Amino acid sequence: MTAAVLVIGDEILSGRTQDTNTAYISRFLGAIGIDLREARVVPDSQHEIVAAVNALRAKFDYVFTTGGIGPTHDDITADAIAAAFGVGIDYHPDALAMLGARYKPGEFNEMRKRMARIPLTATLVKNSVSTAPGFQIENVFVMAGVPMIMRAMLEDIAPRLRRGAQVSVETVQTRLPEGRIAAGLAQIQKDHPELSVGSYPFYREDGNGVQLVVRGRDPAAVEAAAAAIEQMVRAEGGAAQRLPK
Amino acid sequence: MTAAVLVIGDEILSGRTQDTNTAYISRFLGAIGIDLREARVVPDSQHEIVAAVNALRAKFDYVFTTGGIGPTHDDITADAIAAAFGVGIDYHPDALAMLGARYKPGEFNEMRKRMARIPLTATLVKNSVSTAPGFQIENVFVMAGVPMIMRAMLEDIAPRLRRGAQVSVETVQTRLPEGRIAAGLAQIQKDHPELSVGSYPFYREDGNGVQLVVRGRDPAAVEAAAAAIEQMVRAEGGAAQRLPK
Repeated sequence: MTAAVLVIGDEILSGRTQDTNTAYISRFLGAIGIDLREARVVPDSQHEIVAAVNALRAKFDYVFTTGGIGPTHDDITADAIAAAFGVGIDYHPDALAMLGARYKPGEFNEMRKRMARIPLTATLVKNSVSTAPGFQIENVFVMAGVPMIMRAMLEDIAPRLRRGAQVSVETVQTRLPEGRIAAGLAQIQKDHPELSVGSYPFYREDGNGVQLVVRGRDPAAVEAAAAAIEQMVRAEGGAAQRLPK
Repeated sequence: MTAAVLVIGDEILSGRTQDTNTAYISRFLGAIGIDLREARVVPDSQHEIVAAVNALRAKFDYVFTTGGIGPTHDDITADAIAAAFGVGIDYHPDALAMLGARYKPGEFNEMRKRMARIPLTATLVKNSVSTAPGFQIENVFVMAGVPMIMRAMLEDIAPRLRRGAQVSVETVQTRLPEGRIAAGLAQIQKDHPELSVGSYPFYREDGNGVQLVVRGRDPAAVEAAAAAIEQMVRAEGGAAQRLPK
């Protein structure tokens, strides 16, 4: 099972807001065996959103979008998704009812009603934090950009997802420089072509080093590769530390 | 002037590492008048890197890649970029000389020499932190993924970039809910079609509110729109606070 994230919003591209939703979604999906394979950030532009969502939904099992579903004029995600699927968009009766119950009489103005506009054929995604729903249309899940709300929506979405086999991960840390263990590591990757062996150097005040990460769907194979890495690091004269998961 | 960022690395997609390079590059470029218009994250897969870099370099003035230029087997960016441009790749004499001077005799092994493999026709990007260079090929700049190194490379790249007109930004914060000021805000955006007016709600322990951000290349127009927003917020009964830049 594969997925992509589409982050929608000028505020991410301008550097004003640091996106943290992508990493959260990735870990959320990883825990149920769905691999995040691509992420994109596009501006608040219907043309760009349509092009990206159509490219991604054709390529991956699921697409998760964040951002652009609020009440203001720059919230154009629902219209863009309707355009991407070639369907109409209208006030969704359940969304209208939920939002109507939230606001005091007279407060449920036209702009707030925008949040009930949902592409036809879409089903709602519940928002336990601030009521305004996301939605699902085919394999695309449309969520809010505010992290707290996005996370609540993921909880509502989770039961709808087909789960894959979970990924097992082991991490070995050493203070040896990456270049010292690169050949040994390449050999271990070669010995375990079904696993992914990654090398991530770090530079910290207390000294530099590298984290060697083995990922795969067979826990015994992952463990064997991690043990081989520890042995190789020690043979190179370094200390190897298995990091907690 | 427009740009895209291409983040290369399984560790970002798995959620293991939080990407912060995109936001840094965006602010760096913004300060010299170059707009970041798209960002993508792809895995350590030559096919995916080639497809993304070719899509982005055709669409934007500049493309900045991060990640995948170290000494280990999973560092495949240089080969992928060469493939994307249809050029060969070989040891670059200057890169070999720089790296050779860094290591003690006998330490400059085959895997470390991989970091001197540069696509033909590319020019080097200096790395004042850890020596191993990035490179530029046409409008594509290839940088390290480690933030400290990536930032040093950006400094070397900056003088090569054509600058655009700088963007002026004003931010007005209010504790009124977004839905209360959405209609007024839409009118102000309509009055200033050349500006971008964004609305970003926040949820904090000390209370909720919204930041209203005006961006544009004419500082007087940006100021006028920000003043109109303050006036509109006050007319709605709220307090408006201009945030420092």
